[in-house]
Amino acid sequence: MSPPSLTIGFDADDTLWQNERYFRLTEARFQALLADHAAPGQLSERLMAAERRNLSRYGYGVKGFVLSMIETAIEVTEARVPAAVIAGIVAEGREMLAHPVELMPHARETVTAMRGRGEVVLITKGDLMHQESKLARSGLGELFDAVEIVSDKTPATYARVFARHGGRPGVMVGNSLKADVIPAIEAGGWGVHVPHDLTWEHERADPPSDHPRFAVIADLSELAAVVDRIAGQ
Amino acid sequence: MSPPSLTIGFDADDTLWQNERYFRLTEARFQALLADHAAPGQLSERLMAAERRNLSRYGYGVKGFVLSMIETAIEVTEARVPAAVIAGIVAEGREMLAHPVELMPHARETVTAMRGRGEVVLITKGDLMHQESKLARSGLGELFDAVEIVSDKTPATYARVFARHGGRPGVMVGNSLKADVIPAIEAGGWGVHVPHDLTWEHERADPPSDHPRFAVIADLSELAAVVDRIAGQ
Repeated sequence: MSPPSLTIGFDADDTLWQNERYFRLTEARFQALLADHAAPGQLSERLMAAERRNLSRYGYGVKGFVLSMIETAIEVTEARVPAAVIAGIVAEGREMLAHPVELMPHARETVTAMRGRGEVVLITKGDLMHQESKLARSGLGELFDAVEIVSDKTPATYARVFARHGGRPGVMVGNSLKADVIPAIEAGGWGVHVPHDLTWEHERADPPSDHPRFAVIADLSELAAVVDRIAGQ
Repeated sequence: MSPPSLTIGFDADDTLWQNERYFRLTEARFQALLADHAAPGQLSERLMAAERRNLSRYGYGVKGFVLSMIETAIEVTEARVPAAVIAGIVAEGREMLAHPVELMPHARETVTAMRGRGEVVLITKGDLMHQESKLARSGLGELFDAVEIVSDKTPATYARVFARHGGRPGVMVGNSLKADVIPAIEAGGWGVHVPHDLTWEHERADPPSDHPRFAVIADLSELAAVVDRIAGQ
């Protein structure tokens, strides 16, 4: 048996399963909870500013999002928000942590198909415990050779993960140009973009359209052909 | 050069640097913030119950602790807590995330001394980003061959970490019998207990005193002798 030819990394949120839609739903409920105090547009703007301000402090994930919502609620009401509204925000967070995991089209068959083609690694950021819980509930856990839950996705992150698995630059598949595709290419690997109709504001970036190690696919069913083309190079 | 003979795992919080004391300080301030609403003893009890209830949901770390404090404040005041108090709790959490890292006695020299004796791995639970930030600020980062930030510390956790590093059961060094010592022994390794005068209620357990792979040391300066004895077996 020859060694695996290629490391294939998958992002999780909005690549293998839905995620952003739960943040959007929660934000809508947050706006409803504060409807007597501020307009939806103002709330969105202030919440996004709080998230940006808190990112280096709280990192990615639901708990930091809940703390940013609480901070925003206090801010926009000049500390007049009733405790019952804060309790509502905390409850929304709890609900987000427990929502069912809804797989993206072709997720299971595609990850399964990659297993014959190399070492298959899940590479995701967010809350450690929440990501592990979602992976367990997704039913995809046993398909991965390794799981890397990271605090951020930079070129150095991918260099480290590729060094640990496979030993040479691999392929990274994800919905975020900024977090999945561009830094993997900068680390010497290939970046495969699977656009999602909802992408978090902070994750937007321009596609590296002319790059020889960049590809874009409409959904995961197109991945195998791209990986076979890369492996054949 | 012969391969490293032994994997040596170090816990971080209250083993290499102070941690629990910041939780206790914050809890005292939480009690002061709510002094008009509830007695300190009642607050402690309700907070501990909230933490226990939320552990499987939020995991370990400061953000979950802050959310549990907020929940407790709402609960004990029957939702009458002023938003300014909630803002105070959020601010306390921010301060916890930024506190300076204070090393335990002999931490740096001991980790350095272990480098000649095997693969040295940091094994810690908590918030991914906060643990990485503390490690960076501790100045110990470059002394470790690997860092494993895990969501929980069970025998399976140690079996996985030992398999990944070194390939056979190693030594785990930490202040928590429940999280560091006992599960490492159950995974076939050695457990070295370094008691800390403050240990979180949820981390208490009886020492496996008669176990042949258990040792207790007064502080980290005694570790090298224990590890040399293990390596000589």
